[in-house]
Amino acid sequence: MKERLLTGDRVTGNLHLGHYVGSLKNRVELQESYDSFFMLADVQALTTHYKQPETLKAHVNQVTLDYLSVGIDPEQSTIFIQSLIPEIAELTAYFSMFVTVNSLKHNPTIKAEASEKGYSDLYYGFLGYPISQTADIAFCKATVVPVGEDQLPHMEQSRKILRRFNQLYAPVFNEPQAIVGDCARLIGLDGDSKMSKSKGNTIDLDSTKQEVYDQIKKAKTDPARIRRSDPGHPDICPIYTYHTVFRKEESGGINEGCQKGMLGCVECKAMIAASINTLLEPMHERRDTYLQKSNYTKEIVQAGTERARLIAKETMEEVREAMMLNYF
Amino acid sequence: MKERLLTGDRVTGNLHLGHYVGSLKNRVELQESYDSFFMLADVQALTTHYKQPETLKAHVNQVTLDYLSVGIDPEQSTIFIQSLIPEIAELTAYFSMFVTVNSLKHNPTIKAEASEKGYSDLYYGFLGYPISQTADIAFCKATVVPVGEDQLPHMEQSRKILRRFNQLYAPVFNEPQAIVGDCARLIGLDGDSKMSKSKGNTIDLDSTKQEVYDQIKKAKTDPARIRRSDPGHPDICPIYTYHTVFRKEESGGINEGCQKGMLGCVECKAMIAASINTLLEPMHERRDTYLQKSNYTKEIVQAGTERARLIAKETMEEVREAMMLNYF
Ligand code: SF4
Ligand code: SF4
Repeated sequence: MKERLLTGDRVTGNLHLGHYVGSLKNRVELQESYDSFFMLADVQALTTHYKQPETLKAHVNQVTLDYLSVGIDPEQSTIFIQSLIPEIAELTAYFSMFVTVNSLKHNPTIKAEASEKGYSDLYYGFLGYPISQTADIAFCKATVVPVGEDQLPHMEQSRKILRRFNQLYAPVFNEPQAIVGDCARLIGLDGDSKMSKSKGNTIDLDSTKQEVYDQIKKAKTDPARIRRSDPGHPDICPIYTYHTVFRKEESGGINEGCQKGMLGCVECKAMIAASINTLLEPMHERRDTYLQKSNYTKEIVQAGTERARLIAKETMEEVREAMMLNYF
Repeated sequence: MKERLLTGDRVTGNLHLGHYVGSLKNRVELQESYDSFFMLADVQALTTHYKQPETLKAHVNQVTLDYLSVGIDPEQSTIFIQSLIPEIAELTAYFSMFVTVNSLKHNPTIKAEASEKGYSDLYYGFLGYPISQTADIAFCKATVVPVGEDQLPHMEQSRKILRRFNQLYAPVFNEPQAIVGDCARLIGLDGDSKMSKSKGNTIDLDSTKQEVYDQIKKAKTDPARIRRSDPGHPDICPIYTYHTVFRKEESGGINEGCQKGMLGCVECKAMIAASINTLLEPMHERRDTYLQKSNYTKEIVQAGTERARLIAKETMEEVREAMMLNYF
């Protein structure tokens, strides 16, 4: 029996190269070793996008296609929709009874948001995010959760909540372990430290070859380079970072050529665009295959959601028994 | 079509005369005019009793028997268990997205609790009580909610939350109306302003004749009366209050007899005990009838819960459609 892994994405738009480098690549490897649950987090998307529910369906479809295109295998992994697992809301309600507002305020994500808005102006659901995140992990009894370094305090809080449940009622849950990946953030095309949809500095996974060329062409470089012979500073150039990520072995030569003024930005960009296109090509092929079968992504999500639901029901029965809510 | 009414009780123990006077009597009348939903609020009981889940089943059974004994008619009304309607937790999660912590802090119940403990030491679930209460009303689209005067601000908040949902998504909910009963609080046997289980000053609805006599016998009276001929002060005597409630027409005579030192406390108490026993007698008869049919209360609650669940599912489908979460 493989251990169970849970992770997912808020369904707020296309996934991009930043997601690929930061998590998707890693997940494709992890799915070999873990019974992997990939959550399409529509409820969580709504906590910030509650005024735009009309975008959800398209985004759910889009993210599923992105998952499949990078190589998430629906035969071995479970892709499901968060809102269709009502047990997550139930667990959230039960955990909410013994988690104080105070402990939520210590959560770094909540703290960061509150430092801008103040605690009182937070939405209640947002304040409870560490609890609902715990319910996401708990409903399927995931034992491992891949996270970034910055999310470790969240995991500690989740472990605490589940430990408390076990103490109060019965040992239903195991304390999930964090797997901290070496997933670096990918720099944006504009040189911003993070590739992010809201900043419009992304290369989406479904970009065409031409789009990749065009986007790379417009990307920021070292502003000191006017002529090809000007010595460059690759360390401040996002294009160079892409070389270190996607053409690691050749990146030493790029660094040297740039610094010595022997490599032109046009040529340098053409090389990285070609590499990115090589990376994206099998993704496009998979995407096309899936798109040709009509309704295929929908069927995959439906089957995944049904599987997740069955497991959620089993967990909930144990929870009801532990909490003595098993009336009939 | 009758309008739908929702009310209920936290299942934390037997119901007593205070409940009867304050709400049950009224409900028995209301069930003729309204499609009445009576909620056995076990989740809400857990928010304060989360460490004692082992008491829930017995209390659910007890409160159901109390309902039936006072004349709630399971043929016309729906008695159901809150925790078995997961749609309430789902609605709570959705409403939580657009209700600020600030607006919850303005709720008088929350304010009162916070003034003792501070907001930070509240449990998250408790802070969200106005939201989950709204979900209780919303899942069955109740249009009327019987409340005490002090609960009017809760109702206003519920109406606001549902209005906001309708504005954001689609007009799924109607704004429920409060029915303010003339249900006075019943004074406790010890003279405390409220008959309340936690104060041990109650006459439970399932008390035997002898228990009623014994409890009334021990009840507080005017301490100035030592001898029968001492003039009494009925206004400060709980027994006199019971006369005004349960023997209203004869209470003028009691008042006079007490004040003039012509009525002895023993005699006065015997009269009210007899009246209370007369009131409780048909309740005992009904209770015995229900107890004789084995499993009957369980079947009633099960049938009621199934009915409530069907309605909850219908509402949730509308909610999913309004929020565009209807994927399949
Ligand atoms: S040559 Fe390459 S690394 Fe150097 S500034 Fe131009 S694009 Fe950047
Ligand atoms: S006579 Fe009745 S009303 Fe007066 S003090 Fe005694 S018990 Fe109370």
